[in-house]
Amino acid sequence: MLPPNLIPPPFDAGSVWLVGAGPGDPGLLTLHALHALTQAGVILHDALVSEEILSLAPQARLEPVGKRGGGVRTPQLRINQRLIALARTGLRVVRLKGGDPLIFGRGGEEALALAAAGIPFRIVPGVSAGIGGTAAAGIPLTHRGIARSVTFATGHDSSGGLTDLDWSAMGDVVVLYMAGRQLGAIAARLLAAGRDPAEGVALIKDATRPVQTVRVMTLAEAVNAPVSGSPTLIVIGPVVALRDRLAAWQQTAPMTLLDDPQPARALG
Amino acid sequence: MLPPNLIPPPFDAGSVWLVGAGPGDPGLLTLHALHALTQAGVILHDALVSEEILSLAPQARLEPVGKRGGGVRTPQLRINQRLIALARTGLRVVRLKGGDPLIFGRGGEEALALAAAGIPFRIVPGVSAGIGGTAAAGIPLTHRGIARSVTFATGHDSSGGLTDLDWSAMGDVVVLYMAGRQLGAIAARLLAAGRDPAEGVALIKDATRPVQTVRVMTLAEAVNAPVSGSPTLIVIGPVVALRDRLAAWQQTAPMTLLDDPQPARALG
Repeated sequence: MLPPNLIPPPFDAGSVWLVGAGPGDPGLLTLHALHALTQAGVILHDALVSEEILSLAPQARLEPVGKRGGGVRTPQLRINQRLIALARTGLRVVRLKGGDPLIFGRGGEEALALAAAGIPFRIVPGVSAGIGGTAAAGIPLTHRGIARSVTFATGHDSSGGLTDLDWSAMGDVVVLYMAGRQLGAIAARLLAAGRDPAEGVALIKDATRPVQTVRVMTLAEAVNAPVSGSPTLIVIGPVVALRDRLAAWQQTAPMTLLDDPQPARALG
Repeated sequence: MLPPNLIPPPFDAGSVWLVGAGPGDPGLLTLHALHALTQAGVILHDALVSEEILSLAPQARLEPVGKRGGGVRTPQLRINQRLIALARTGLRVVRLKGGDPLIFGRGGEEALALAAAGIPFRIVPGVSAGIGGTAAAGIPLTHRGIARSVTFATGHDSSGGLTDLDWSAMGDVVVLYMAGRQLGAIAARLLAAGRDPAEGVALIKDATRPVQTVRVMTLAEAVNAPVSGSPTLIVIGPVVALRDRLAAWQQTAPMTLLDDPQPARALG
């Protein structure tokens, strides 16, 4: 499935690859991720990884371990133990996550558990939702003259409450993951920390998918804006204003999968 | 070159794709990036994009526009004009950058110029060096309990001097791009802003390539550490200490290219 002159590194039996699937568009999978999907014996995947992407691994057994919205998430310790047990049976194990495994993906915890158990592993970085989702929304995270630093943070802690962060220790642009429910509280904290009430805020849902939506408001308006329980990426900063100048000419159609493979129609 | 059931979005003649090539390992190209390379009529590329990756576009005319070290960089305005002129000749134009186009890649400036000229464009996000390079070095940028926010910044301004940033407005982890020469000055500013002198600092060169090197020291030691003019990624934060626990079991071999394509040897 890769160009014939590209030789992937070996995915050894009994090893685990911690793989980022990107924000949703299958075209944002990396070549390593595609290779891992086609070689995997078993895939432990988050709920946010799409059926489309999972369909690229028809030979693999799938084990969902994520949660969506208010559902039950498999405890992290249990996932770590499962990865180790599966690797010890000699399988090629993929742990597939939305975005990047080490940006709020708990891939570090899994890597530490694997190393402690003596299981070889590889980390396959992915396009983080904060980077790929904002690009698809026409919002450059850095921009000469107006944004020279960007901070990624989570909007909630492990109990679902507002993260106990130092809201003054943020860059010119702030990207918050999975923060829809905390929008008002976060906006209030950022204003209290001295940010400009007129600064732009964008709420991005279903980033890089055909159903992607982007809502834009000011930081002052965000304090009382309706909140949402669905996974939402929040971007705060002067770069939000650039979106209006780009949208008319920006193309964002994702890569699509044919249900019934028709090789003659492939363009690539 | 893509799996036959994956249908990429059209890359129209007369349009420009701003494409992130990732940090170096060809396996970190996205499927969109690979599609763009194989369809391009002309590629304007940075110096940091490897020969290996450029070899995936044998049909394209290559125009180098980057600078390396102290060399001369094509002025940004000139690159913008060239992208517009080439698109107007009806070519499929790729602007290929290391990492991600919008994370210190000036892709936002190019997108604005294209939109103002009425040229359709697409932004193809990539694995940013700050994410892919740190993963390959065994440093998780976020980690429950010790790192809940991460800030990306540049180490130098457009004149090559130290960036005029608010060094107290940084997350739990700080990732600095192209900052080798400014290491001592940055470490001094971060200490003055109140960071812990014992905090770990990692200097990563040639991230994700076979020749990747990682040097680790404390923030206090970094103040007087020898500086380097070559592109260096700097990571500062408590997560640097995790590297020692991962390195023995982490696999990082990149994807390689055969000079002489031998389809029978393809593993993917």
